[in-house]
Amino acid sequence: MSTPTPSQRASAWLAQFGKALAANDLKAIPGMFAPECYWRDLVAFTWNVRTQEGREAIQQMLASQLPQVKPSNFALAGDATEADGIVDAWFNFETATARGYGHLRLKGSDQGDQAWTLLTTMTELKGFEEHKGENRPKGAEHGVHPGRKTWLEKRQEEQANLGFTEQPYTVIIGGGQGGIMLAARLRRLGVPTIVIERNERPGDSWRKRYKSLCLHDPVWYDHLPYLPFPDDWPVFAPKDKIGDWLESYVKIMEINYWGSTTAKKASFDEAKGEWSVTVERDGKEIVLRPKQLVFALGVSGYANVPKIPGAETFLGDQHHSSKHPGPEKYKGKKAVVLGSNNSAHDICAALWEQGVDVTMIQRTSTHIAPSESLMELALGGLYSEQAVKNGIDHHKADLIFASVPYKIMHTFHIPVYEEMKKRDADLYGRLEKAGFMLDFGDDGSGLFMKYLRRGSGYYIDVGASELVANGSIKLKSGVTIERINPNSVTLSDGTELPADLIVYATGYGSMNQFIADLVSPEVADRVGKVWGLGSNTTKDPGPWEGELRNMWKPTKQPQLWIHGGNLHQSRHYSQFLSLQLKARYEGLPTPVYGQADVHHVR
Amino acid sequence: MSTPTPSQRASAWLAQFGKALAANDLKAIPGMFAPECYWRDLVAFTWNVRTQEGREAIQQMLASQLPQVKPSNFALAGDATEADGIVDAWFNFETATARGYGHLRLKGSDQGDQAWTLLTTMTELKGFEEHKGENRPKGAEHGVHPGRKTWLEKRQEEQANLGFTEQPYTVIIGGGQGGIMLAARLRRLGVPTIVIERNERPGDSWRKRYKSLCLHDPVWYDHLPYLPFPDDWPVFAPKDKIGDWLESYVKIMEINYWGSTTAKKASFDEAKGEWSVTVERDGKEIVLRPKQLVFALGVSGYANVPKIPGAETFLGDQHHSSKHPGPEKYKGKKAVVLGSNNSAHDICAALWEQGVDVTMIQRTSTHIAPSESLMELALGGLYSEQAVKNGIDHHKADLIFASVPYKIMHTFHIPVYEEMKKRDADLYGRLEKAGFMLDFGDDGSGLFMKYLRRGSGYYIDVGASELVANGSIKLKSGVTIERINPNSVTLSDGTELPADLIVYATGYGSMNQFIADLVSPEVADRVGKVWGLGSNTTKDPGPWEGELRNMWKPTKQPQLWIHGGNLHQSRHYSQFLSLQLKARYEGLPTPVYGQADVHHVR
Repeated sequence: MSTPTPSQRASAWLAQFGKALAANDLKAIPGMFAPECYWRDLVAFTWNVRTQEGREAIQQMLASQLPQVKPSNFALAGDATEADGIVDAWFNFETATARGYGHLRLKGSDQGDQAWTLLTTMTELKGFEEHKGENRPKGAEHGVHPGRKTWLEKRQEEQANLGFTEQPYTVIIGGGQGGIMLAARLRRLGVPTIVIERNERPGDSWRKRYKSLCLHDPVWYDHLPYLPFPDDWPVFAPKDKIGDWLESYVKIMEINYWGSTTAKKASFDEAKGEWSVTVERDGKEIVLRPKQLVFALGVSGYANVPKIPGAETFLGDQHHSSKHPGPEKYKGKKAVVLGSNNSAHDICAALWEQGVDVTMIQRTSTHIAPSESLMELALGGLYSEQAVKNGIDHHKADLIFASVPYKIMHTFHIPVYEEMKKRDADLYGRLEKAGFMLDFGDDGSGLFMKYLRRGSGYYIDVGASELVANGSIKLKSGVTIERINPNSVTLSDGTELPADLIVYATGYGSMNQFIADLVSPEVADRVGKVWGLGSNTTKDPGPWEGELRNMWKPTKQPQLWIHGGNLHQSRHYSQFLSLQLKARYEGLPTPVYGQADVHHVR
Repeated sequence: MSTPTPSQRASAWLAQFGKALAANDLKAIPGMFAPECYWRDLVAFTWNVRTQEGREAIQQMLASQLPQVKPSNFALAGDATEADGIVDAWFNFETATARGYGHLRLKGSDQGDQAWTLLTTMTELKGFEEHKGENRPKGAEHGVHPGRKTWLEKRQEEQANLGFTEQPYTVIIGGGQGGIMLAARLRRLGVPTIVIERNERPGDSWRKRYKSLCLHDPVWYDHLPYLPFPDDWPVFAPKDKIGDWLESYVKIMEINYWGSTTAKKASFDEAKGEWSVTVERDGKEIVLRPKQLVFALGVSGYANVPKIPGAETFLGDQHHSSKHPGPEKYKGKKAVVLGSNNSAHDICAALWEQGVDVTMIQRTSTHIAPSESLMELALGGLYSEQAVKNGIDHHKADLIFASVPYKIMHTFHIPVYEEMKKRDADLYGRLEKAGFMLDFGDDGSGLFMKYLRRGSGYYIDVGASELVANGSIKLKSGVTIERINPNSVTLSDGTELPADLIVYATGYGSMNQFIADLVSPEVADRVGKVWGLGSNTTKDPGPWEGELRNMWKPTKQPQLWIHGGNLHQSRHYSQFLSLQLKARYEGLPTPVYGQADVHHVR
């Protein structure tokens, strides 16, 4: 007998798995999984975003969900591969209500092949598929239709009526990239939606940031759904170009986007099961009554500005990094930038380039990831021109990324940063010599884990680190600003620095502070802390959650959802949030399994 | 010995061909081509758009071009296939200045495999490739660049300077789809270009047409370069949606687009080798001095309005189809539509749907191609969802289409329309019974050949033919309007029809009438007639040209070019026109071979 191929092994496992599930044979399940095993489910089985860790958790989930979910038709998609003793396979499957796509990592064992990681994702709801490809709309309705309306007339009617004579099913608060991507998906699914944005035009949340800002993630990581960037799109898109793209995207996708609109107050009417959202649009108050309310305010909403004694006496300019106008007017002056993450570095570099005398105040250690190294070592396999040539476009890359359980993700990342330490040893050495406090995360797992755990604490180096290392950007490290004087700041070590400008590059407030302000502190606390994995590392207290808190899944407040993240996450997870909303819009059963408890508030 | 595979046969032919060309062995060439043979070249060998018909023409072209073109590296691209005794193959090649892609049809013979059709196309100029994929721009310039400018600043500077302190290399007159696509390609190639458009916004030339207009060609045929429509784009896009798309496209592609700008006068300064183009932009006169002037005015520029006695006495509304506002205000009234092509049918149907009493005046016979049949029988193999699934996207489809020489194209089309006659016999029978005069082109080759030969004479039926057949749209056939009275029209058969509205769906003037008006009648006549193949069929007088007159290739007026056609042609041929312009911009040798003589003026 010849050795079975990876495809044969994966097919055999899927067949056995499908059979056990169809027969509701829960006893057969544990033996099909390795002793260390993970089943990550994106909506397909759990109507939740949830990782089952270990055999017992898997069995419990199935015991609860199998009767309603009724999975079937597990079938290998494409050829499986094998490397380092792990068989890697993609597969299709169905449930009672949906079609799904999954990923499987198998390990051989004495008991036969066992699953190490399993990913199941929902791709579409049966009977509620997107109208695309061969099911695209016809456009022209051939034949004769007295009184027919044109596309333009229908679109104008919708814009005139939605929110007034007709209520949207979903209101998304926040019209940045996250809100836009979710709205585009809901549009395709036919869920009436309005996006509320305080800025005038889509893209303004990028345009209004500091002048030198470019995306820190490369283009292959940044595509929006349905309309990939053209193939000459810059690797790191300048902020105004991305702003214009978002504006065109909103128009092309026919999103009902209310710019210059501020959400003033929202409350949930339990009896009616709907929200009342008061907004001010172009100075006029309007009350919207959606069934579902999505917060898509991202991380750049609430500026964190520390209260420093004497700030009111300062005679120069002082502002949060989000309000920084750019360096031009400070040529020849003295600037102090409080903070040492991405914005702090970018702003310091732009000020220095314009001939400003600039000092960075580093309060705590920072992770520096040189952009080139990050792209090659951390992202290159999934998001790069080479990856695309290898057949890994961003759709596939997103799924591969999603297939790694958070519990073990850091073990995938630590070696990358070990390599980065070696590769960029020279820069790191000189930074330390300049007094810069470096770290690589509590466990050395680097940038992305920091981002997931705490959403802060790093700079993707696109040049400013060299300026810090060589002293062009002056550095005061291990201190903070203790007091602000009319023409200077006094640091905690007693140093006084003359200053014409203070920039607070001090980050952004907790996402659910918005909920407290807009809805109520009670609802905010019912929802609990947003973001973070419960890793019990700096700024990410335990217990372990296994997934990002409250992101893209049901919260403890009915009909309230949180959407956000970087472009990759907003793209990928908007798929699953939109399917959850669509299912509710259509009245399909959505039995949520294993909703996380709230351990922390705000 | 086993039979050689199609790939082996094609590879062997290409190797032998490449060897003969490299050795300048012209004697070897005729025997490699079938007695009936065609070599269509798009810029790669001839710096022209030209079909060499027959062995002698091929040998003559090579005798002239080989020394400069220096072709090399012919290599099969992908597997060749065989059907009906014809081997079909794709191949790459190079010339001294460029890279190319080609298509080959081989026939077996006693003398071995011989080429029946050969297509050679230029894809890029060496050293002047588009910055895409792995050569895309970086966006953020990492490192430190004192005084650096942002993308936005550079873009704003360009917009402020180009046409004022800096002159564009190319001016494109006409900012419809054709001008936009050419400008997008020139942008990618770094050729400074301004597009002049009399309408305010990109897309207005679609928006301003009659309300019910949708594209008559399906989505797979209509993609613009670089940014394909999303996969939910309607099969037949409504005019306002296409208008919005063009507007977004212009922004995304960073085209220097001067809306609300009219070209008043242009003249060529032979001494300086440049044009002087006087334009009025927002009421202000500006003189542009480009090296190259492109007319991209399409077919919907100059309305053809017949001069009919008494027109000035008419008390109702009368206008050309291009000015028709839509049916609403004519409800319950009587309309007469002069003409029986696409616009006439669409306008009649929309009027009837709104309860207007409408009569179509058919002067001469018309070709009716039911949309469903046209899509399935004529376009389906190349431009459809099924074609995409078969691996034929619009890039490949354009090349397959281009590979069929015009000389024999009608023989590919006649069977399609034979089939259409059978399939739609019922409709055709009822149309004739209603008095409608039908034709299928002089030789039965149908719609696309009519389009290429004369650019008129057909209706793609999306429903109006049924209304004509069943009498809902009244028909007067074989007559014209002889006289217009205050409240009626008198037809050439003496009938008097009461009328509150007259629509002249009488088509558009010759493209080079623009040149006569803007430059001079002398230059217009030097250029000669534009469009048409010289097929010696109705409205396309001989002699045979082999290619469309003056389209996308050098004209007899130096530095004057004509661009246009439907979306497919504008997309495909803008590639070759942009490469011709880029080569001249960079001062590369562009030895034009076989420029056509002018046989007809305007």
